[in-house]
Amino acid sequence: VMDKWLINGLADEVITADDRGLSYGDGLFETIAVRDGACRFWSEHMARLRSGCQRLGLPAPVPEQLERDAHELIGAAERGTLKMIVTAGRGPRGYRRPQPVASTRLVGFSVESAPGPREKARVRLCATPWGSNRVLAGMKTLNRLEQVLARAEWDSAGIAEGVMLGAHGRIVSGTMSNLFIVVEGQLLTPRLDACGVHGIMRAKVFDVAGRLGLACREEDLPGSLLKQADDMFLTNALWGAWPVERLDEYLFAGSEVTARIMDGLLQLGVTECRC
Amino acid sequence: VMDKWLINGLADEVITADDRGLSYGDGLFETIAVRDGACRFWSEHMARLRSGCQRLGLPAPVPEQLERDAHELIGAAERGTLKMIVTAGRGPRGYRRPQPVASTRLVGFSVESAPGPREKARVRLCATPWGSNRVLAGMKTLNRLEQVLARAEWDSAGIAEGVMLGAHGRIVSGTMSNLFIVVEGQLLTPRLDACGVHGIMRAKVFDVAGRLGLACREEDLPGSLLKQADDMFLTNALWGAWPVERLDEYLFAGSEVTARIMDGLLQLGVTECRC
Repeated sequence: VMDKWLINGLADEVITADDRGLSYGDGLFETIAVRDGACRFWSEHMARLRSGCQRLGLPAPVPEQLERDAHELIGAAERGTLKMIVTAGRGPRGYRRPQPVASTRLVGFSVESAPGPREKARVRLCATPWGSNRVLAGMKTLNRLEQVLARAEWDSAGIAEGVMLGAHGRIVSGTMSNLFIVVEGQLLTPRLDACGVHGIMRAKVFDVAGRLGLACREEDLPGSLLKQADDMFLTNALWGAWPVERLDEYLFAGSEVTARIMDGLLQLGVTECRC
Repeated sequence: VMDKWLINGLADEVITADDRGLSYGDGLFETIAVRDGACRFWSEHMARLRSGCQRLGLPAPVPEQLERDAHELIGAAERGTLKMIVTAGRGPRGYRRPQPVASTRLVGFSVESAPGPREKARVRLCATPWGSNRVLAGMKTLNRLEQVLARAEWDSAGIAEGVMLGAHGRIVSGTMSNLFIVVEGQLLTPRLDACGVHGIMRAKVFDVAGRLGLACREEDLPGSLLKQADDMFLTNALWGAWPVERLDEYLFAGSEVTARIMDGLLQLGVTECRC
């Protein structure tokens, strides 16, 4: 549970029952790592939120308001997680949005202490698939039941993440992370034009790969490739890049590509990337 | 806006910011017509809600609680709309549900006066498609962004509904209704195993057709059939069956099948079916 919330800029912890974020998942969210007292990759998160609002036809968020909220909540804390939700606001029953939309803005923050060193992740293959819809693909919307159902498939604390497939058995992502594999020295990640979320850390991997002169290809990847890959790592805003030890019973041999990407991220301040 | 809400049985109008209904759309809803002071097709709505909770892995709702809430809200009102929302309740950040789940139950009611006689509906074809996911197909979940975006495609008060297609350009439904067409005297409705909502009124049309000895086939229907059909009608819990005059520029000739279905529904107490 978030330690503190600001709702439309005011300390509160409730929204009204007629908020379209609840009724229809009509909104977006961001999860931001707070490190050394600052929001890591703030401008990238703001850009994604703005782009998502544009695609959904919601009013553009005001970054200065969000920044003020974040600043107030973080206070003197060094480390934690900031969550932002922007909804289409209150409205009468029915899918039709009121005009103009008066968004609801929720910002929450929880303090966290730095975790100890982590081991490589163990992951599993999920049965719950991603649905396909180009209209929603890539956005971090509040419609997340597919991920909830995939995450409900396992309960073991030893399993860090589940891999989800999409249409035609293609690889898409983890339930809460993006996914990269290394096949014959080539760094690959699923194309996300029909489903998935365009992760901020995923984009940072592209940047880092480019700087290192490593090609990183976005492709339609068949699920069968998962257990032929030399290596796999997961990315999200909080994890940085997290190498995977095994997918179910399949053990990854490991690849120097993963280590190079992690080094590159570390230089961008992603200190989680020591494993 | 609903006139009154009960939240977990208490008069209130807010939920907490960490409710999973808001965070992830982790929940279901029902929209029920109150007619002559009673919830029409109450047991069918309860059965659908129970079935949805089972599929999502949520605790079964307690019908007696919901009935008590409905009774309290409706009071002496004769006519209106009851909305029920069941969510996976509060939880910490992350797709993983707390165990056990403590659902949040919201019941809202708005009084409405009986509308005047209605004309046949004018509808349009939407560009926003349904996504496909057999895991969510048929349920009235809180993940409704596809319908929101489809509904945002038009603003004209003269257009009652939009028709949405799914994968491979197949017909699925309206944004807020199910859809039937009559082709060469045959009553047809889209199969909903990849997307769509199993409407209560849709099921009543099956019942009525059966009693009348009319075959009603559920099939994969190509979008091209829309503008070849003799007739079309829309169903939902509030509309009953509503004949369509035109889809964009295409005028339906009309069919006696539609009139017979509407007569049959009228005998089940669906008094909207006078057009």
